[in-house]
Amino acid sequence: MLNHINMSTARGEFDLIDWIRRHAPNAGGGAVTLGIGDDCAGLRFSDGREVAVTTDMLMDGRHFRASDGDGVLEQIGQKALRVNLSDLAAMAAVPVAVVIAVALPKRLGRLDSRSIGQRLHAGIREAAEEFGVSLAGGDTNAWDGTLVISVTALGEATERGLVRRSGALVGDSIFVTGRLGGSLAGRHLRPTPRVREAMALHGYVDLHAMIDLSDGLSGDLRHILEESGRGSTPDAIGALLHAERVPIHDDAIAASAVDGRSPLEHALRDGEDFELCFTVSALDAERLREVPPKFVELSEIGVVTGEPGLRMQHSDRRIETLAARGFDHFADGDAG
Amino acid sequence: MLNHINMSTARGEFDLIDWIRRHAPNAGGGAVTLGIGDDCAGLRFSDGREVAVTTDMLMDGRHFRASDGDGVLEQIGQKALRVNLSDLAAMAAVPVAVVIAVALPKRLGRLDSRSIGQRLHAGIREAAEEFGVSLAGGDTNAWDGTLVISVTALGEATERGLVRRSGALVGDSIFVTGRLGGSLAGRHLRPTPRVREAMALHGYVDLHAMIDLSDGLSGDLRHILEESGRGSTPDAIGALLHAERVPIHDDAIAASAVDGRSPLEHALRDGEDFELCFTVSALDAERLREVPPKFVELSEIGVVTGEPGLRMQHSDRRIETLAARGFDHFADGDAG
Repeated sequence: MLNHINMSTARGEFDLIDWIRRHAPNAGGGAVTLGIGDDCAGLRFSDGREVAVTTDMLMDGRHFRASDGDGVLEQIGQKALRVNLSDLAAMAAVPVAVVIAVALPKRLGRLDSRSIGQRLHAGIREAAEEFGVSLAGGDTNAWDGTLVISVTALGEATERGLVRRSGALVGDSIFVTGRLGGSLAGRHLRPTPRVREAMALHGYVDLHAMIDLSDGLSGDLRHILEESGRGSTPDAIGALLHAERVPIHDDAIAASAVDGRSPLEHALRDGEDFELCFTVSALDAERLREVPPKFVELSEIGVVTGEPGLRMQHSDRRIETLAARGFDHFADGDAG
Repeated sequence: MLNHINMSTARGEFDLIDWIRRHAPNAGGGAVTLGIGDDCAGLRFSDGREVAVTTDMLMDGRHFRASDGDGVLEQIGQKALRVNLSDLAAMAAVPVAVVIAVALPKRLGRLDSRSIGQRLHAGIREAAEEFGVSLAGGDTNAWDGTLVISVTALGEATERGLVRRSGALVGDSIFVTGRLGGSLAGRHLRPTPRVREAMALHGYVDLHAMIDLSDGLSGDLRHILEESGRGSTPDAIGALLHAERVPIHDDAIAASAVDGRSPLEHALRDGEDFELCFTVSALDAERLREVPPKFVELSEIGVVTGEPGLRMQHSDRRIETLAARGFDHFADGDAG
């Protein structure tokens, strides 16, 4: 969704999002319960539960490199679906259906449009079946350009409602699922949207705020703080993380051995982990520590503070402020 | 939606759609009330009314020619929204919200990505306000390719439900709104989705089947007949149209003067009219003739027959069979 923007310059990015957000028509009125600025939009039809809607577009040369090699197109179909399901998981919405629009190149090596479409679709289908969503419709076009795939996913709130980015409170504990960093070594091609984990957590504790980690922990946690701080007193909140508690993926250690940046740095700044980051009350945090939900790997990494900014405490008690820059996972070849 | 496909060859087109339709995962189960093959997908959340979802992707060089000329980008934004709203109108769904994904070129003449996005958005906003829908979210990317915009629109059924393509019955009268043909002279850039007309009709008569005219009357009416004929006895139904009753747009007459093809031919085969074509019982047809709804221009053009195929009766009583080819409005420069 709109946080996944990538313009030529970092400044250009946020300018356009803010501009659109300020100018977004809201003529549909009460039906939109949550507009631009979260993982999904929230809608309420009739008197039913909220519906979460998210859209992500992936482009050849930008988010992937299409080729007619074995399994590449299936992998792109898989990923396109999975990143959208990750957005639904971030709201604790139950995935229901997707609609998919594609612009297919007329040829890709020895493949024609039809074969390209079929391979993409095979990957989409496999992911859809794994996560229990229907392909409800789409729009298929061929053109002279390169492959573009745009997935819109719809999910429904459980009786506990959708979880926003904006509900974090000072004193909340901050948790993440799984392990972070080094995803670009290959894991990012087939992320596991944490749908089941989101459901298990949502039924067990009161999730104040949640986001999926697409831009890197430091950038995405900042989104939670920004959205939660809007209109609060004080008008900005922050977080204090404990360096040794950030769960490091083996891939981050491998990446560190190659580029010399620390594994922690990779865990904080690499993108495309597609794990969940959420905040809960101190009481619920205790519950998660004492009786953690089964099959959900959790790390309690810090607390939400009344002091603005994102700070990190190291094992030697030294506290550093983390600069406002996550890994821009859309920048070509820029892992940094 | 999926009828708006355009592959290199006419054969390739329908192959891929049929293939996807046969292979579409339906793991979401009961929530999908209407899958691939109509103007929109139908979903039912909780116990609420049906929700219609449609997605259309427009690409530079294929559906439009982007430039930094005055108003071109605003026009593209307008059109992207309007064609999706036309799909909602075709189901008699009340438009609620849209989410929009865009791939913006890094430059277009003197414009950068940000300016391109703003201009597109200005057009989107204007159309959204006119038709009472909210821009609920989106995904904005810049890349080295040309402009791609993918809109997903959501609408809600009224208490009378969504209108399918598949409900036409033998003996039904066939109507169209407005006048047809010659849209490519310019009208197609700012189509008027017949949202209000659909609502007025849906509240007044029992709409058996409906579609919006994007591919040309002869092609789109064929979609109604195909969907309505599935599983019926006889297993195919047809239509008999009256040539002199097909409403001809002035633009079709102008186009005829240029290319020598008859105005009727333009009305039948040109694409992008974005008028509605629907069928009702003989009784409701009488009602529409005697007390037509206000502000809706209607023409009764023929009847649904038990005999398969699309036939046209001329004023000299001669009956011709219309070949199965509408105007492919996606083919570059091919006006059919």
